[in-house]
Amino acid sequence: MAKVVHLGFLGCGNIGGGVWKLLDAMHDEILQRDGLDIRVERALVKSIPEARTDVPAEILTESAADVLEDPAVEIVCEFMGGEQPAASFMERALRAGKTVVTANKMALALHWHELQAAADQTGAGLYYEASVGGVIPIIRSLTVSLEADRIHRIMGIVNGTTNYILTRMAREGASYADVLADAQRLGLAEPNPAADVEGFDAAYKLSILSSIAFHSRVTVDRIYREGITGVTPEDIAFGREMGYTLKLLAIGKRSGNTVEVRVHPTFLPDSHPLARVDGSLNAIFLHGDFCKDMMLQGRGAGDMPTASAICGDILFAARAVRHTVPSFRNTAETDPALTVTDDWSTRYFIRMKVTDAPGVLARIADVFGQRDISLAAVMQKGSEGEKARLVLITHKARERAVREAIAALDPAIAQVVSCIRVENGEA
Amino acid sequence: MAKVVHLGFLGCGNIGGGVWKLLDAMHDEILQRDGLDIRVERALVKSIPEARTDVPAEILTESAADVLEDPAVEIVCEFMGGEQPAASFMERALRAGKTVVTANKMALALHWHELQAAADQTGAGLYYEASVGGVIPIIRSLTVSLEADRIHRIMGIVNGTTNYILTRMAREGASYADVLADAQRLGLAEPNPAADVEGFDAAYKLSILSSIAFHSRVTVDRIYREGITGVTPEDIAFGREMGYTLKLLAIGKRSGNTVEVRVHPTFLPDSHPLARVDGSLNAIFLHGDFCKDMMLQGRGAGDMPTASAICGDILFAARAVRHTVPSFRNTAETDPALTVTDDWSTRYFIRMKVTDAPGVLARIADVFGQRDISLAAVMQKGSEGEKARLVLITHKARERAVREAIAALDPAIAQVVSCIRVENGEA
Repeated sequence: MAKVVHLGFLGCGNIGGGVWKLLDAMHDEILQRDGLDIRVERALVKSIPEARTDVPAEILTESAADVLEDPAVEIVCEFMGGEQPAASFMERALRAGKTVVTANKMALALHWHELQAAADQTGAGLYYEASVGGVIPIIRSLTVSLEADRIHRIMGIVNGTTNYILTRMAREGASYADVLADAQRLGLAEPNPAADVEGFDAAYKLSILSSIAFHSRVTVDRIYREGITGVTPEDIAFGREMGYTLKLLAIGKRSGNTVEVRVHPTFLPDSHPLARVDGSLNAIFLHGDFCKDMMLQGRGAGDMPTASAICGDILFAARAVRHTVPSFRNTAETDPALTVTDDWSTRYFIRMKVTDAPGVLARIADVFGQRDISLAAVMQKGSEGEKARLVLITHKARERAVREAIAALDPAIAQVVSCIRVENGEA
Repeated sequence: MAKVVHLGFLGCGNIGGGVWKLLDAMHDEILQRDGLDIRVERALVKSIPEARTDVPAEILTESAADVLEDPAVEIVCEFMGGEQPAASFMERALRAGKTVVTANKMALALHWHELQAAADQTGAGLYYEASVGGVIPIIRSLTVSLEADRIHRIMGIVNGTTNYILTRMAREGASYADVLADAQRLGLAEPNPAADVEGFDAAYKLSILSSIAFHSRVTVDRIYREGITGVTPEDIAFGREMGYTLKLLAIGKRSGNTVEVRVHPTFLPDSHPLARVDGSLNAIFLHGDFCKDMMLQGRGAGDMPTASAICGDILFAARAVRHTVPSFRNTAETDPALTVTDDWSTRYFIRMKVTDAPGVLARIADVFGQRDISLAAVMQKGSEGEKARLVLITHKARERAVREAIAALDPAIAQVVSCIRVENGEA
């Protein structure tokens, strides 16, 4: 006997259309194999006359209540994107006891507490595998497969647009502005690209990843965020000479009760597995006490890969009565027992223009040395007018000390052009 | 209120000891976070006086019945390895309604039908994440996250010992025998290495992977198997010159109702993500209709990574009432609706010694051409006595045609030294 599962869609754009297409293509196979007869009952669109979708016109509606209040709908799939009204619609669905499946990292990262509280109240399920890394099964890996492990570090390439831009800048030596314009022309970057290039998208995803990995809510406002708009082909070329590849990483680290969470351009050794994840691919590298190093890579975006992850959630939700994923003590705010630090320790690539005169390097080294920052490599590369181009790579140093050192440099002899953090995947 | 979960161990060697250690280290955290109080009630060992384990002596037993018939034991964790008595013990546990967690690919691949039938009879759970790829969450990714997708290809580096040997042969130009001896000395290969180097271990794992991915039992006896004992440094060096890396791959492909399943040394383009998975690491690359390319990599062996995967299963089993993973119609034998072919189509690297005389290359090319095998590259490399060394790379060709061509070569002019299949990750 097949079990009929009734879905309601909130939104029916690219992702909703992809889910429809997948469910249509796989309907008979899923029915035969799993005994699940998945049916879409209602689909909310902004305007029925303007809807461009394969979903049959007779199930389209312009009223959210038709989805949220239809007693036949058991699972609500949210494809609207954005913070509101998506978050409040999901909350209404959960309060009505309907399971929610979403790919909406923004609504989840900002409203996790209300959503989880609503789910807990009614026992409804809340699933969001597709919210981070597209089809990469990172959420289920962290919440289920690695549940008994203790995760210390996560480093992810979780935004395909910026990875595409950085990959092309590295390959072509092209400027950020030129590659961005081309990516926009190709539809790979939004007309307003801020969410991607300023790191907001990655920060939402890091909030979700680090909350789950560290079993404690890490809110978006605690995440240090720096985008790729300031990245230059010169930095990429200097890094390459020194054996580094530049990536926009979402980094979460835990040491005892201290957590650091940051999104910024990062140099990785060329030998690191993440350094080879190119174009619009996503990948998540993690390290735990018992699992040691692990990496998952795949399509982080695209209608059909995202649809695959969403439909995985739908089938899981349809079969499991309710698999409560491990929660954390307090979804409202960052766990008071955990400290989120902004004074992490890592290595730094610092490029500057310096006056080409005897004694200058010693004076610069002294400014760093006074703050316990030791230099692992110094490279001088030609000159521009009276200025020499100098690149320093530090050993591990404190973020604050590096900022202080940069501020303390005498502008008459040294101007810092760029400062990029360097990670090697170790603690 | 904590839920007490009672475990019984079958076997208490390296992996059992690792699981004990993990559960001991994480007990309080799991209790506090997940409300699960995990307790090991009984542990079967061969000989209590000779047991070298951290598990307390009072719970050790030499009688399997003490574990299998103890009504308090809800989850039986099998760490004995090997086919028997492990398989029959697991079957007894399942028939008694106890959930079974195992990492035993051999017992599972050979006795899946009896085990699944026993589980279905009582509703007990059967979990085996650690049986393939160690801590890599490939089983759950296939059975849960990608359940709605249609997987066409799997290529895995699923045996760490052979990957270690091939990696060192490539780096050092050393012979198979020398590296094997060193690996045995370091404890990275067994004194009797056949299970690893002859590809048996990889074949058991491929049976499990392809059965799940293709939703149809693929029994071990249907898998073509060729180990690494015949691999030479010369082949590796020739391949490198042509841009290929040699790996022992477990390959499963499905096209319509035809399946090909094979374990053999394989050349991969250096640019393929699997080509860079070195040493004892494992990785699984897969391609599905909707998810497209995906790769998961991590520790395929080792006490603690394996323990992490096993404990993930234990917590999942303890929490889910019973999450029935998608099964297939017939676990007893390969699905009659599917054809397992041994006449697959791929590319081939063929190295031979040929008589160095005019017209010889034309005669060889003719033998291949007559069988619809076209050559993508021909490389002649120096000579040994009167013989020239010749390497051919074919375009895609049928396995049987290639075998026939090799058999048809005139031994007076050409002797084939090695024939290695070449995959590029595409269909």
